[in-house]
Amino acid sequence: VPTYSPCRVAFGCGMSQTNRRVGFWLIGCFGSVSTTVAVGIAAIARGLMPTTGLSTTLPPLASLELDSLDHIVVGGHEIRKGDFYSAAHEIHKKSQIFSIPLLESIKADLDSWSGNIRPGLLVNAGVTIEQFSDQSVRPNNSLRAGILAIQKDIQDFQTRHHLDQVIMINIASTEAIFKDRPEYHSLETLNAAIDQDKRELLPSSSIYAYASIEAGYAFINFTPSLGASIPALQQLAIQRNVPIAGNDGKTGETLLKAALAPMFLARNLQVLSWVGHNILGAGDGQVLADPANKSSKIQTKDAILPAILGYKPQTHVSIEYIESMEGWKTAWDHIHFAGFLETKMTMQFTWQGCDSILAAPLVIDLARLVLHAHRRGESGVLDYLACYFKSPQGVTEHDFFKQVAKLHSYISQVER
Amino acid sequence: VPTYSPCRVAFGCGMSQTNRRVGFWLIGCFGSVSTTVAVGIAAIARGLMPTTGLSTTLPPLASLELDSLDHIVVGGHEIRKGDFYSAAHEIHKKSQIFSIPLLESIKADLDSWSGNIRPGLLVNAGVTIEQFSDQSVRPNNSLRAGILAIQKDIQDFQTRHHLDQVIMINIASTEAIFKDRPEYHSLETLNAAIDQDKRELLPSSSIYAYASIEAGYAFINFTPSLGASIPALQQLAIQRNVPIAGNDGKTGETLLKAALAPMFLARNLQVLSWVGHNILGAGDGQVLADPANKSSKIQTKDAILPAILGYKPQTHVSIEYIESMEGWKTAWDHIHFAGFLETKMTMQFTWQGCDSILAAPLVIDLARLVLHAHRRGESGVLDYLACYFKSPQGVTEHDFFKQVAKLHSYISQVER
Amino acid sequence: VPTYSPCRVAFGCGMSQTNRRVGFWLIGCFGSVSTTVAVGIAAIARGLMPTTGLSTTLPPLASLELDSLDHIVVGGHEIRKGDFYSAAHEIHKKSQIFSIPLLESIKADLDSWSGNIRPGLLVNAGVTIEQFSDQSVRPNNSLRAGILAIQKDIQDFQTRHHLDQVIMINIASTEAIFKDRPEYHSLETLNAAIDQDKRELLPSSSIYAYASIEAGYAFINFTPSLGASIPALQQLAIQRNVPIAGNDGKTGETLLKAALAPMFLARNLQVLSWVGHNILGAGDGQVLADPANKSSKIQTKDAILPAILGYKPQTHVSIEYIESMEGWKTAWDHIHFAGFLETKMTMQFTWQGCDSILAAPLVIDLARLVLHAHRRGESGVLDYLACYFKSPQGVTEHDFFKQVAKLHSYISQVER
Amino acid sequence: VPTYSPCRVAFGCGMSQTNRRVGFWLIGCFGSVSTTVAVGIAAIARGLMPTTGLSTTLPPLASLELDSLDHIVVGGHEIRKGDFYSAAHEIHKKSQIFSIPLLESIKADLDSWSGNIRPGLLVNAGVTIEQFSDQSVRPNNSLRAGILAIQKDIQDFQTRHHLDQVIMINIASTEAIFKDRPEYHSLETLNAAIDQDKRELLPSSSIYAYASIEAGYAFINFTPSLGASIPALQQLAIQRNVPIAGNDGKTGETLLKAALAPMFLARNLQVLSWVGHNILGAGDGQVLADPANKSSKIQTKDAILPAILGYKPQTHVSIEYIESMEGWKTAWDHIHFAGFLETKMTMQFTWQGCDSILAAPLVIDLARLVLHAHRRGESGVLDYLACYFKSPQGVTEHDFFKQVAKLHSYISQVER
Repeated sequence: VPTYSPCRVAFGCGMSQTNRRVGFWLIGCFGSVSTTVAVGIAAIARGLMPTTGLSTTLPPLASLELDSLDHIVVGGHEIRKGDFYSAAHEIHKKSQIFSIPLLESIKADLDSWSGNIRPGLLVNAGVTIEQFSDQSVRPNNSLRAGILAIQKDIQDFQTRHHLDQVIMINIASTEAIFKDRPEYHSLETLNAAIDQDKRELLPSSSIYAYASIEAGYAFINFTPSLGASIPALQQLAIQRNVPIAGNDGKTGETLLKAALAPMFLARNLQVLSWVGHNILGAGDGQVLADPANKSSKIQTKDAILPAILGYKPQTHVSIEYIESMEGWKTAWDHIHFAGFLETKMTMQFTWQGCDSILAAPLVIDLARLVLHAHRRGESGVLDYLACYFKSPQGVTEHDFFKQVAKLHSYISQVER
Repeated sequence: VPTYSPCRVAFGCGMSQTNRRVGFWLIGCFGSVSTTVAVGIAAIARGLMPTTGLSTTLPPLASLELDSLDHIVVGGHEIRKGDFYSAAHEIHKKSQIFSIPLLESIKADLDSWSGNIRPGLLVNAGVTIEQFSDQSVRPNNSLRAGILAIQKDIQDFQTRHHLDQVIMINIASTEAIFKDRPEYHSLETLNAAIDQDKRELLPSSSIYAYASIEAGYAFINFTPSLGASIPALQQLAIQRNVPIAGNDGKTGETLLKAALAPMFLARNLQVLSWVGHNILGAGDGQVLADPANKSSKIQTKDAILPAILGYKPQTHVSIEYIESMEGWKTAWDHIHFAGFLETKMTMQFTWQGCDSILAAPLVIDLARLVLHAHRRGESGVLDYLACYFKSPQGVTEHDFFKQVAKLHSYISQVER
Repeated sequence: VPTYSPCRVAFGCGMSQTNRRVGFWLIGCFGSVSTTVAVGIAAIARGLMPTTGLSTTLPPLASLELDSLDHIVVGGHEIRKGDFYSAAHEIHKKSQIFSIPLLESIKADLDSWSGNIRPGLLVNAGVTIEQFSDQSVRPNNSLRAGILAIQKDIQDFQTRHHLDQVIMINIASTEAIFKDRPEYHSLETLNAAIDQDKRELLPSSSIYAYASIEAGYAFINFTPSLGASIPALQQLAIQRNVPIAGNDGKTGETLLKAALAPMFLARNLQVLSWVGHNILGAGDGQVLADPANKSSKIQTKDAILPAILGYKPQTHVSIEYIESMEGWKTAWDHIHFAGFLETKMTMQFTWQGCDSILAAPLVIDLARLVLHAHRRGESGVLDYLACYFKSPQGVTEHDFFKQVAKLHSYISQVER
Repeated sequence: VPTYSPCRVAFGCGMSQTNRRVGFWLIGCFGSVSTTVAVGIAAIARGLMPTTGLSTTLPPLASLELDSLDHIVVGGHEIRKGDFYSAAHEIHKKSQIFSIPLLESIKADLDSWSGNIRPGLLVNAGVTIEQFSDQSVRPNNSLRAGILAIQKDIQDFQTRHHLDQVIMINIASTEAIFKDRPEYHSLETLNAAIDQDKRELLPSSSIYAYASIEAGYAFINFTPSLGASIPALQQLAIQRNVPIAGNDGKTGETLLKAALAPMFLARNLQVLSWVGHNILGAGDGQVLADPANKSSKIQTKDAILPAILGYKPQTHVSIEYIESMEGWKTAWDHIHFAGFLETKMTMQFTWQGCDSILAAPLVIDLARLVLHAHRRGESGVLDYLACYFKSPQGVTEHDFFKQVAKLHSYISQVER
């Protein structure tokens, strides 16, 4: 295993000189994204891997005072038994990522962090997700009791590890779509409903969000689940002076749509139809094979084009679970467009990526940026993080490069 | 044939209310790009086609005071015999673009413009181009005499059609690469060399550029040929108060590189290799099959990635002449990149476009923008037009979206 | 329009010296496949087009005594008003196939054939197909009356044009799946049910098949509809000494599967998953967008792999209606396979074809071959035609090259 | 590591009950193909891997009396220092094939076989190959002495390991093209030239072939190098009663051409152009980056289409060395074809394979089949093995399925 320590500076790891220590509290720990987050933090912190994939280690983001990767402690909730080291080995075997020598070199870190995992909450997540869980589920006395238990787990984690800050990040599997309810529209009505213990009120992701925000911890929703998207939780975030960000990490096909659609617009090439066919295996694919969970995903993937182009071309997005793909995903996109004199032309692309490898660095980037915002006293939805999300909260701009420009302009303000 | 007249406003044709009339003087008239320019101007001016593909008819560009498409007269130089109508029919037959009813409806315009074509100049263009030419070549008494003859042709055109402005646009086939010479470095030395009638001094594209600029006509080089890229001609442009723009219209694969590479950078995904394989038929393909002419093209296509990424990945660009493709071009690009934890992933795309259909609207956009700049008194290289060129003169920024942002910021200034 | 008359021999048109005249009676005349059949027969018979795409004009098939293309008269049933010439123009405009000069040169043939079209039958075809029809539908007094009326139309056609033979070919849109019924299992029970006028008994395709076979005309089912697939109709064919062939022309993606799967088998490369995503516009796409009609199609497309490979890999086939594609179809197939030492590898292909251009020559090939068989006294299912069908009746062999070998061995027998 | 022992029978390993032991003498041992051959034999013999990729373990080939994989001993010549175990580790690290636990389980076998490797011969191979070699090269006293030394190495190997049969297989890097010479046309003239010690007479591959055949060992040339392709060596093979087979294993893109072209022919679809662009890394890519060595390869890749189709479409084959690909290869093929009524359509495919994983099982299949032929007393070129080679010696049939049919018909004869 090569040692990258001299690269730390070259790659702009943004390692601080302070002794500040922070915690990443992950929801859905032994999934492939979380496991990759843990492996990545350990490997980079020990100088065994370069920082490729982390946007916060390149200019201009690297100039912010972000937390060093060797000052991060990982913990979280999980509804399945397991540990990071075994999960990482399993991923290596199936998806050919990580290497065995690398995993041996960071086994101590992974094992120590596995000790920080607590049984998760499982409510209203849909049948497919529920079948994955084993006994590691928190018993459900009441909604309020569940919230308090979550908060206690995080506070214990913070105390035990002497952490200056902790952030909660939801990376659990996509839940089935949850319809809007009147109780969501104000904090008051939401609190009342929680007190009445309406069990069907909220999906797990939103209960976690509530618990985190109410206890003063920043919250990131990296999935298309409901999370903190409802007005009541945004109110709570402002009230508790807590920053939040979401939804749904923009990792692959949607990132490409957000980068390519502005090009078609700039050239006045009229997109006639945009078809995206995604195949993927592993846990995520299996959950998305359930139509209820899949529709959450497709909805966020399909909204982006009209927002950028200003008109609605015919679109079709499909996601299929193909077991042999394991942790890898292939998207085939067919873009049919009209150019000058109504001439039809075609662009096709295939994107062959490893989902967790694409997602994990965004999780780390986002956590570093939101922790930084928290320290600066920012609260509520951080709209300048739109470039990281498929469905950025509070933002209608979907042009990737305008989103990036917005982030860069935030950095300029901070630096001034 | 449908009539689009009501769309003119809807599509933002930017039709002016003035009686101003302008001339497009094309070098290389009966090539497929020029023919498509002529067909497009006539079809849109008559309301028979929408303005798809013209970026100047969409906001924010549409707000500039640009020349209306029905006030444009077309003329130019050509080294082959022919006429627009026959050339358009040939293209239709081979490449399935345009429709016969459309061509019938605009025959009068095309025939009238064909009457404006004068025999072209053919010097130092390389063997392959030379074999295309027939007797329609201007005899070469001396360099200076050639220049004067070109200028007289344009001036006659302007007088005969009562044109307020004329612009020269080089769309002739790509010439073989021309090495830098000491005479290029100042207007004084260049003039001296012309006076000494050094025949091997300049390629046709630069003689045209000289003639145009010296006579006070704006000049656009839409090809990778030398054109006005030498310091002496930029000096001349400033001296004569003439705006110039070039080189090499950014139509297909390079446009995609310029749009996609910034995405890889923004995500810190390390491009390991970027292979582009282009196949195309028709005249352009045939000229590019000559290694001398091809290397001009590949050079401009290959420079863009290091400029955007900040490092040099392995790149390979090839262009092959495949007869059956006729006017169509397919580019296959294979992008191999490393993400988090050194994991290699792949993006591939194919771009199936009709070259002249992609190029012609850019020619019209550029001509309208440079004529507008000329009226405003701008002179020398117009660097805000970089987004239209593969090798934008005077600009090192190759990120397509930053180039577009620069153009938009120019528009804001004009409007203020 | 070029003239190909000298090529007739070179291309092996197999033009006979006899005065035999034959009729093609098409079900679904103004659809794009039928229109292309009519255009093709006329264009090749007049020497205006080469015979590319017709397998019966190449060795070894060309050695059979097949009917010359200039001795064919076209007629048929259609549920929509229209004519071949207008239908061909419409297809040209939307899908860029045929050329206007070609259509002018064969207008007389097309118009004459349009005079042979009679109102069609429309029963149990599914809602989507029904909405396409207009008044050109035969009133339904009773099943038996409907059958007699169909037979009378064909007999009139044969008499009027002095035809030696007529063949019926079903090219109407894919019907919704029709479940097996006890009445199908013998001719006796079927006849009884028809006499009892059970209106929901049979789809149109099978009523046509019944009418054709009972009247002594050979029948080809080029679609996945039920047609003559039921035992009762096969009995009828034997009884009347009539040859039949079907189902579902093997034109594009399935042809490729049938050609590629044997290669994976021959190399012992284990197909892990085979995903096929098809997008197409035009009439066929629209009909297939109806889930009821689509499932007929997908079923035949999905059966082929296990039959060739001997095991069942994970497969996924989807067909989506994308309006902008018009008559064109793009299939993207992703084949994931394991090689030596369990190494996973990938083949992907895209197939961009024009459906009617791929289908029409197979219709002509099949009709020529079945007419030939009829003359030779063959009756019942012609299993040696399997290479032309996605779901060949009476055949379990799906390896394309073994199917071709079977056809070639039939030819050797005929020649001996 | 899973154990596949029960599968041996199920997968049809063709394990014999005899005590016969055979030797594989590989030329170019520590290249990726040879290393994969060694890893594969050991892994399958120990029941740790299934026989996927080995065509000789499936019916009908499995019915022949072939040598069991656990009775094979590996040895050979190599011009570089090294050993199988280290080479395999290096390949794993770069190309993500094999697994570390697997390599540990077979380390004893690999190490024992590494002890059988002797310094190789290096003459007339081209500059690029020569730079790879280190001191492990046999000193060159004279051609005849070199031949004797090679023979002695093999005979020692056979004696030491008590082997019933040994076969030599050339898997060394592709040599630069060697032009035909008068001395090649008869054994007599060749022997005379060897006796005169004409050093520039033969490339290494042919010297090896001579040595092997003359000493009575069967010879397979798995590369496009000259090997035993010359008449003189074929004479020698007949004289010594030795079977030979070659040239150039048909692993990827060419296999696909040989499988797809017959489909285009069977449908009378006219191939207008077939473009193949190959990118690959690792040793083979690097050698092929040298134009001299590359042209050997392209020549064999380009001959196949006219042979199958019966006419010559425009073809273009390119191979580029792209370092980041390591042992993997991607071929992009663009097939432009005309269908009915001269309509142009397109098929494209990408093939993403690991070269050594595709090649190694063919090496094992071929060696088993040629050893079997040797025991049966067959000699000279074995033309029924054409389906395994890009340029099958003595065969003009390039249709893959006809080649397979020929092999199957040989098997039927053997069994009778």
